[in-house]
Amino acid sequence: MAPKLGILAGAGELPSRVIAACRGAQRPFFVLAFEGSADPAAIEGAPHAWIRLGAAGEGLRILREQGVRELVMAGGVKRPSVLQLRPDWRTAKFFARIGYRALGDDGLLKAVIHELEQVEGFHIVGLDSILGSTLAPAGPLGRHLPDEQAQHDIARGFAIVRALGALDIGQAVVVQQGLVLGVEAIEGTDGLIQRCAGLKREGLGGVLVKATKPGQERRADLPTIGPRTVAGAAAAGLRGIAVEAGSTILVDQSELVATADEAGLFIVGVAPG
Amino acid sequence: MAPKLGILAGAGELPSRVIAACRGAQRPFFVLAFEGSADPAAIEGAPHAWIRLGAAGEGLRILREQGVRELVMAGGVKRPSVLQLRPDWRTAKFFARIGYRALGDDGLLKAVIHELEQVEGFHIVGLDSILGSTLAPAGPLGRHLPDEQAQHDIARGFAIVRALGALDIGQAVVVQQGLVLGVEAIEGTDGLIQRCAGLKREGLGGVLVKATKPGQERRADLPTIGPRTVAGAAAAGLRGIAVEAGSTILVDQSELVATADEAGLFIVGVAPG
Repeated sequence: MAPKLGILAGAGELPSRVIAACRGAQRPFFVLAFEGSADPAAIEGAPHAWIRLGAAGEGLRILREQGVRELVMAGGVKRPSVLQLRPDWRTAKFFARIGYRALGDDGLLKAVIHELEQVEGFHIVGLDSILGSTLAPAGPLGRHLPDEQAQHDIARGFAIVRALGALDIGQAVVVQQGLVLGVEAIEGTDGLIQRCAGLKREGLGGVLVKATKPGQERRADLPTIGPRTVAGAAAAGLRGIAVEAGSTILVDQSELVATADEAGLFIVGVAPG
Repeated sequence: MAPKLGILAGAGELPSRVIAACRGAQRPFFVLAFEGSADPAAIEGAPHAWIRLGAAGEGLRILREQGVRELVMAGGVKRPSVLQLRPDWRTAKFFARIGYRALGDDGLLKAVIHELEQVEGFHIVGLDSILGSTLAPAGPLGRHLPDEQAQHDIARGFAIVRALGALDIGQAVVVQQGLVLGVEAIEGTDGLIQRCAGLKREGLGGVLVKATKPGQERRADLPTIGPRTVAGAAAAGLRGIAVEAGSTILVDQSELVATADEAGLFIVGVAPG
């Protein structure tokens, strides 16, 4: 049997998906839920403990007490300011070494993974290895296909999101008829989609493009879309979603596709080129 | 006496500043105001005509009837989709040649300026030559100075806004303690500032950084800040504004500085380096 899995639980639906996958595989697990990010409903009924982001020392102690050696990161964490972090001694030591303020999100996650593996001796696995074949394939996922205008917008979107990714800011952009309606930063993809509803122009709607950052650490924070993303995109007047094939986690694929089909949205995986 | 000035009026306070400057210099002028962008109150009482963005043929005819040879662009224009544009014959010919959808904002403005000068024989002057010495100097403008954290945020902000500028998206970014709270796209700087209010972290507030795009056409759409920008930044919990020295138009400098001094914000011009 697979060893006990430690689930580092952030925001959204991913922690509950991982819990369900563990239960399905009868794999033992323990959830370490981050205050201010994890959704209490998502971990209800599962063995868990809550922890502040800045309390790394306590978190490591709990994981060891629980006999956990393998970890998975599930769901994003709302990144705090240094003041909000209120780091304990273990956290402060880490940040003193890496320099909290100098790092973007991916840089920070890489440093965290390195610390957990090289210094603390844990093994970090990717979400995709737990959730099975949930990565977006190349090509369309549902009934609807991007037309010529949408294909232009997708191409421009990927060009932008790659350049942004190199700056380690966000992973998503909304493009409508060549116009960049919005660029993701700390607000996250749902926030981006929502505000683009108020920025859209007349005529053919926009496209959401999500992609990994160049050189991104794949065991943390892979781009994710789910039925909620699709519903939000439809409500904002978007016509479809393009993601990077092989690097985007699809949450609830069948429901996602059904939602997109019904709303008239296309979902398409684009091979990185 | 200087020749009659044609004022291509977009959004915000700039058109009324240009009108005031013309009146002060007793220079004749005529305002061509873009529907959906220009503020009727800003051009009230001035000789003017309203025009749709897509009606270039009519706009050129009016300017010629008015005997205008010299033009200035004042205030941003809300960029429409192709459908909203409803181009007349003259506009359609122009866009067929340049390819509307392929261009970012600066690329489009450059093409418009080239068309007006090389094809139509107008002369385009920069806003700064009309408004006098209103460009931000290097160094602090008011009483307050950026501290060490703010200086870090300013440096990160400039690095990001330069990379963004190369993509011809936005000109502004908000950074708080190294975290990128927001990146400007089509919503404009006021919209960016407003939404960052809801994204801010605890502790020392963020900084707004505005800069030109690399190779930007200086006669169109130079970054602009005014008292309204400062008031918005203060309301959003920002600690200051950093702009590019020599390339940023200060609207109402004395009121701007007074507003910043009172609100405790720094305003600093940074020499491009």
